[in-house]
Amino acid sequence: MAKFIVVEGLEGAGKTTALELIKKVLTEKDIEFVTTREPGGTPLAEKMREIVKSETDEVLTTEAELLLMYASRAQLIANVIKPALEQGKWVLGDRHDLSSLAYQGGGRQVSDELILPIRNAVLKGFEPDLTLLMDLDPRVGLARAAERGALDRIEREQIEFFDRTRAVYLNNAKQNNKIKVIDAELALPNVQQQIIDELTCWFDDIH
Amino acid sequence: MAKFIVVEGLEGAGKTTALELIKKVLTEKDIEFVTTREPGGTPLAEKMREIVKSETDEVLTTEAELLLMYASRAQLIANVIKPALEQGKWVLGDRHDLSSLAYQGGGRQVSDELILPIRNAVLKGFEPDLTLLMDLDPRVGLARAAERGALDRIEREQIEFFDRTRAVYLNNAKQNNKIKVIDAELALPNVQQQIIDELTCWFDDIH
Repeated sequence: MAKFIVVEGLEGAGKTTALELIKKVLTEKDIEFVTTREPGGTPLAEKMREIVKSETDEVLTTEAELLLMYASRAQLIANVIKPALEQGKWVLGDRHDLSSLAYQGGGRQVSDELILPIRNAVLKGFEPDLTLLMDLDPRVGLARAAERGALDRIEREQIEFFDRTRAVYLNNAKQNNKIKVIDAELALPNVQQQIIDELTCWFDDIH
Repeated sequence: MAKFIVVEGLEGAGKTTALELIKKVLTEKDIEFVTTREPGGTPLAEKMREIVKSETDEVLTTEAELLLMYASRAQLIANVIKPALEQGKWVLGDRHDLSSLAYQGGGRQVSDELILPIRNAVLKGFEPDLTLLMDLDPRVGLARAAERGALDRIEREQIEFFDRTRAVYLNNAKQNNKIKVIDAELALPNVQQQIIDELTCWFDDIH
């Protein structure tokens, strides 16, 4: 049965490198897959992404940001992820729901009272089969992200924002064995080896 | 103290005419006011409105529609309505929260379990001082709306959708004495007289 694999992590954690590596593994195994990114990933969801990422004088409220993230996710699940899985295609996601828990719940401190009902309505129990969490100190990640170019609206938050985001990421990983933590502060070959090892174990488990 | 007045109702109920009449009354009383429309009303909220109204091949999910409506409302309240009221300007709204209760809750049958936590988070108890509900049989309203041009995505719903929407409108009016029902099926002069009468009573009450 087709699977949904997600890569998560803070800015500069090496998500793109991880995604490339997973693509290579899936291709070697002759697994057909589609890739997604969140927020966005459908024509309407990409318009929501533009709003979330836009640099305007108008302050985007915490509530609107959260609602847009989930509106985008509702579109992506209904119109891309589920149809692909139903056709037997795997899905490889650059971020998914855990990002909202971490960034909006942790970073922005939106209460569970608001997030959980929205989450239940949008996900209806749907979740990734495997999540690789690229974990690192946000100070290291932001320095890396800054090197490769200008930071966007969310990436310019205070360091405490990212500390809270990371804490929620790690806390979820502790409670959910479908989330595997990769130490992303180590040198690239080591990080890649961790990813390969996690994937190998996981493929063994699901077969 | 500055007040927030809203006009609500189904398509073809005569909201625009009612708004014009209220503007005239406010102007005669030398009351400074701003006008809003929902969804939309700020640069970011207008982008959300475009998504909600857009005619694309991509199905907008019920959940995404609801979330976008409230994201738009969060922006409008924070960036337009509250700042105006704080500056002593009145606000005259073409639709507000009651539309979401009626259209998404009634028409689309989204559960209170989802709507209420979102509503509480976005509104934080904020509500209009006066709502005029232009009430009529949706068959009459849609016939009028069709006469003046093409119907949009939401306006092309089945009649049962609008019957449910109307029922929620009326039910809320029964429970909230800040919502006044105007019989919008009658001839224009009669409808206008009802609006003037309601406004006159209300102005007497608040003074």
